[in-house]
Amino acid sequence: MKGIIMIIDGMGDRPIEELGYKTPLEAAVTPNMDKMAENGICGIMDPIRPGIRAGSDTSHISILGYDPYEVYSGRGPFEAAGIGVDVLPGDIAFRCNFSSVDDKGIIIDRRAGRIRSGTEEIAHTINSMELEENVQVIFKESTGHRAVLVLRGEGLSDQVSDADPKHEGKTPKKVMALDNSEEAKKTADILNKVVKKSYELLKHHPLNIKRIENGENPANIIIPRGAGAVPNVEPFGEKYGLNPVCIAETGLIKGIATIAGMQLIDIPGATGGTDTNLENIKNGIIETVSRDYDFILINVDGADEAGHDGEMDEKVKFIEKVDVIIGELMKIEDIYFILTADHSTPISIMDHTGDPVPIVITGPGIRVDDVKKFNELSTVKGGLCRIRGNNIMDILMDLMNKSTKFGA
Amino acid sequence: MKGIIMIIDGMGDRPIEELGYKTPLEAAVTPNMDKMAENGICGIMDPIRPGIRAGSDTSHISILGYDPYEVYSGRGPFEAAGIGVDVLPGDIAFRCNFSSVDDKGIIIDRRAGRIRSGTEEIAHTINSMELEENVQVIFKESTGHRAVLVLRGEGLSDQVSDADPKHEGKTPKKVMALDNSEEAKKTADILNKVVKKSYELLKHHPLNIKRIENGENPANIIIPRGAGAVPNVEPFGEKYGLNPVCIAETGLIKGIATIAGMQLIDIPGATGGTDTNLENIKNGIIETVSRDYDFILINVDGADEAGHDGEMDEKVKFIEKVDVIIGELMKIEDIYFILTADHSTPISIMDHTGDPVPIVITGPGIRVDDVKKFNELSTVKGGLCRIRGNNIMDILMDLMNKSTKFGA
Repeated sequence: MKGIIMIIDGMGDRPIEELGYKTPLEAAVTPNMDKMAENGICGIMDPIRPGIRAGSDTSHISILGYDPYEVYSGRGPFEAAGIGVDVLPGDIAFRCNFSSVDDKGIIIDRRAGRIRSGTEEIAHTINSMELEENVQVIFKESTGHRAVLVLRGEGLSDQVSDADPKHEGKTPKKVMALDNSEEAKKTADILNKVVKKSYELLKHHPLNIKRIENGENPANIIIPRGAGAVPNVEPFGEKYGLNPVCIAETGLIKGIATIAGMQLIDIPGATGGTDTNLENIKNGIIETVSRDYDFILINVDGADEAGHDGEMDEKVKFIEKVDVIIGELMKIEDIYFILTADHSTPISIMDHTGDPVPIVITGPGIRVDDVKKFNELSTVKGGLCRIRGNNIMDILMDLMNKSTKFGA
Repeated sequence: MKGIIMIIDGMGDRPIEELGYKTPLEAAVTPNMDKMAENGICGIMDPIRPGIRAGSDTSHISILGYDPYEVYSGRGPFEAAGIGVDVLPGDIAFRCNFSSVDDKGIIIDRRAGRIRSGTEEIAHTINSMELEENVQVIFKESTGHRAVLVLRGEGLSDQVSDADPKHEGKTPKKVMALDNSEEAKKTADILNKVVKKSYELLKHHPLNIKRIENGENPANIIIPRGAGAVPNVEPFGEKYGLNPVCIAETGLIKGIATIAGMQLIDIPGATGGTDTNLENIKNGIIETVSRDYDFILINVDGADEAGHDGEMDEKVKFIEKVDVIIGELMKIEDIYFILTADHSTPISIMDHTGDPVPIVITGPGIRVDDVKKFNELSTVKGGLCRIRGNNIMDILMDLMNKSTKFGA
């Protein structure tokens, strides 16, 4: 038996007047999800605990059976791992923007003219930066104006402030230690040097000279934010005795899977938006199940995007499109299939909320309840009642008959 | 949006044969509470955890989002704060009786003839008591024969036994240290001196001479019990970023609110009994909501009193009277309104039990479930399922859109 956890990112919602006080999931036509509810055991799930607004990162960490309050200190490490930086426990990672400063050091464009190409070349320049301190600078471009910075060495800390002033017309903020430790002071010093040196290295970079000639803002400085220490987590495969794999669209979720030691499967056309290629995702899942992995984490991100954008119809339609591929995935044999969300992203709030999300589990031996619809309210009456994210792996391992008994 | 938590103290109960195996809340005619259930999301709530018999104090502490196992060491500090003693973290507080001893030191009346007047004058005498040790004695009368004692100074402990022998015909018990610490020994010594000295100061007090002349038992000794250390809690307003206020009837709940740094609103005619002036309480709530507070904790105590007295009809009738004012409170706009109890006080047990209590939340964006009656059993099928006291503030903060996201 194999286990699949499929997470429809941000699918949970609140009743919407225009939908006759239904949620997008209630309003959507989802015969396949409803069939799963009919054949499975349902409930509601708090990713962390009731009322707590989980991020996608902290929720996935919790669902995979780790304690986010222990493991999570910021988004940086997961973003870095997600774009393929080989982070190590103890590394301090930052999200960065390529920005544009004028010759007085004022930020004139936080996104460097929304630069699209050439960042790999610039990143290479920063990546080879040498500091006097015995600290290695690892720097890699992400999509658009985004990049990650990783500091590796002894005596570093994630307790440092952001260099990003969040507004144009200001100089980069001086990075400060957030506690009294030597490590935080050292890290803040290094970060200030990296920002300064990035300008020196980039101001006359051929790519920037060309951008200025073309009337584009140069990517002549890097501005870090969101410090986080790479956690030392027990690899997921060892923790559960599974051979795990992850199919995800966004760097954040890929990064979590990577730090948990899971393999990643790349899906062509997976955009993380509502325009993603669900057909390819479905085929990728079916192909992956046929291989020797016994656990697959799947994250599909479009419903969350629609929620953040407040696009009600888009969210309903995307859920219906996901329902179609679920119809195909239900045909896979010999699996426990868990369908849920990582949090609610209500259209009315346009951000994550602490509302619980529906969950259903299908597979042999399940105590099938009488819930017939998969949505936020109907699943409340299911056999799982109200569980937490960090219960899911224990329940799955038990169903897969891979648990060890605690006691005699 | 503002938040109201209204707690009908001790409202939960168990089925009663004379009520056709209904609980008092099931038997009571409560069209307004039922309307709240119909318009809201329902569930059951364990103040601490399933089966634990919560006090009103520990339950309120939990509902306000503090850990009672950390914060609560006894009732003394909350009673003291509730009658207006300005307690400080680290103070050791005791509940006291004014009692009557004969000249052999035997307690002839634990309640000093249920003394009603003049205790302020006696309390003043005790309050100005000076000890050799560098410890301040703060003493204040409460209602009737009740009073509070607060010891303030370095090196004190709440790990001391009671002086109260609980029965007449005995001498006050020698206070003993309950652990081996120097602090406990010192505190026990001081307490024994305070008891002894209280007799010296009071035996010839003019008020007592007059009482004896009138054939009344003198209030010639104070007998402390229920030691508790005043906890150092993060003020509720800072913890949640709210401007909070409390409307309560009893010193105990007022004391909790005070120690949590909440403002108190005094309601004329609020007795804490079934004879309380609910009309004034209702008007007080409506007036308070119109001011710049954004969180109101309300406690109405009569149902608990009826439960402790085993007065079934009284409990049913009081719940019906509360239902009338809830009808008015439901008309307040732009609020999240949470109605629940702090614990069950079943008629059959005449004390608190660990049975969960019903809870309902109304307000915009709520996932309204199909529960139509507000009582112990019907709410089980609601959208909240079974939550705990310390989930309530997280859920409310999320609904009020004042939560910060944990993660990205």
